Amino acid sequence: MDMLALEHIRAVLSRLEETIIFGLIERAQFAQNKVIYQPDGVGPLQGKSLFGFMLYETECTHAKVRRYTSPDEHPFNSNLPEPMLTRLTFSDSPLYPNDININDEILPIYQDRIIPRICDQGDDGQYGSSSVNDVQLIQSISKRIHYGKFVAESKYRADPAPFDAFIAARDADAIMCHITFAAVEKAVLDRVYMKACTYSKELNETRINYKVDPEAVRDIYAKWIIPMNKQVQIRYLLGKQCVSQ
Amino acid sequence: MDMLALEHIRAVLSRLEETIIFGLIERAQFAQNKVIYQPDGVGPLQGKSLFGFMLYETECTHAKVRRYTSPDEHPFNSNLPEPMLTRLTFSDSPLYPNDININDEILPIYQDRIIPRICDQGDDGQYGSSSVNDVQLIQSISKRIHYGKFVAESKYRADPAPFDAFIAARDADAIMCHITFAAVEKAVLDRVYMKACTYSKELNETRINYKVDPEAVRDIYAKWIIPMNKQVQIRYLLGKQCVSQ
Repeated sequence: MDMLALEHIRAVLSRLEETIIFGLIERAQFAQNKVIYQPDGVGPLQGKSLFGFMLYETECTHAKVRRYTSPDEHPFNSNLPEPMLTRLTFSDSPLYPNDININDEILPIYQDRIIPRICDQGDDGQYGSSSVNDVQLIQSISKRIHYGKFVAESKYRADPAPFDAFIAARDADAIMCHITFAAVEKAVLDRVYMKACTYSKELNETRINYKVDPEAVRDIYAKWIIPMNKQVQIRYLLGKQCVSQ
Repeated sequence: MDMLALEHIRAVLSRLEETIIFGLIERAQFAQNKVIYQPDGVGPLQGKSLFGFMLYETECTHAKVRRYTSPDEHPFNSNLPEPMLTRLTFSDSPLYPNDININDEILPIYQDRIIPRICDQGDDGQYGSSSVNDVQLIQSISKRIHYGKFVAESKYRADPAPFDAFIAARDADAIMCHITFAAVEKAVLDRVYMKACTYSKELNETRINYKVDPEAVRDIYAKWIIPMNKQVQIRYLLGKQCVSQ
């Protein structure tokens, strides 16, 4: 399988939309529950918030089974245990070796912007369920954003010359222009909105009612997921010079 | 909130259908990957299968944040750590104290019957993703099945006399008849099928194509989820005698 074939990348990104939308719907059944994002807010958890604790513990488990040796997986924590399973080599990874990871930027956006956009204000006491859903959801959003590395490599290989010039000039703005296709972004947003309407609509009610506001889902893609994916693309492309130097 | 109000129970069970169907759709994007259910099948994991290892580790994390002190949560493993957070008392639980837990029966049904019903045969190498989704999905199925305790208590309180007679006679068959409403079960199955069609349909294709077969989703409810929920109801009701003795 050619991991950089545009067909393949598009299929992965489109399928991730379902995962993210299902995750948004699942999280939105609970209130914001801000206390789960506050250090020791629910009780003593080694100075971590409940969500932070669950995310760390989950990543420890996943590290043990070598999740983060895969080029399309990125942890939020750095102090994780070694894999118990033999490392996979991923010698077929089409990416140049890199440690680009913008989860430090994704985490506050998630807690402070995305959660208030999809959840009712207030506190319903559903701390555990909210945190479990948070872990799954932020992991899928992070995967979608960091998939920009594959998108960038694919675009680069299709036509390296203009990228080489922008990279040599350290011109991030020119790269941004070159990787931006307004029509494609609009098509993604329209599709995401349509999917959100379908999956989120209450099916048993006469009045149309949504489990999560489809406008919010589109907004989350427009304001954060797509822009941060492009930031990853730019950082990945700018990193190409470092490798060849 | 009255946890035994039929309105409330119905809302919980209906909302759990979304969680379970989303989980089935998410798992069905990967092949069966039988090796993840075999002890040390993917590599050395203390004699556990990859799925078993992930389930155990996840339950350890959740036990630390006191998930299993809640009367509607049931672990698959018994050797779990103590909560780091103060136990909640759940003094408002409407259930009599009980340790009914049929996860030992749910686990083989899940691995050997449900997975082959929803996933393509074979092995696609997506072991980690398959196992992560398995953990979420089996937990939601277990929650749905064990919610029978609340259903049973609600039915009992609505009209205790016939139940008391059947319980005194240890007549499980009579209890089964008394808690079975064919029309209600048919309505649930019809609703589940309709939801599965809606959530599972590929939205971008001219030919109708489903991510998971809606018939399979209905079957899983008909053959396993509803019957095992009723088994929990019966065991819970039969346990009432022990308490009053």
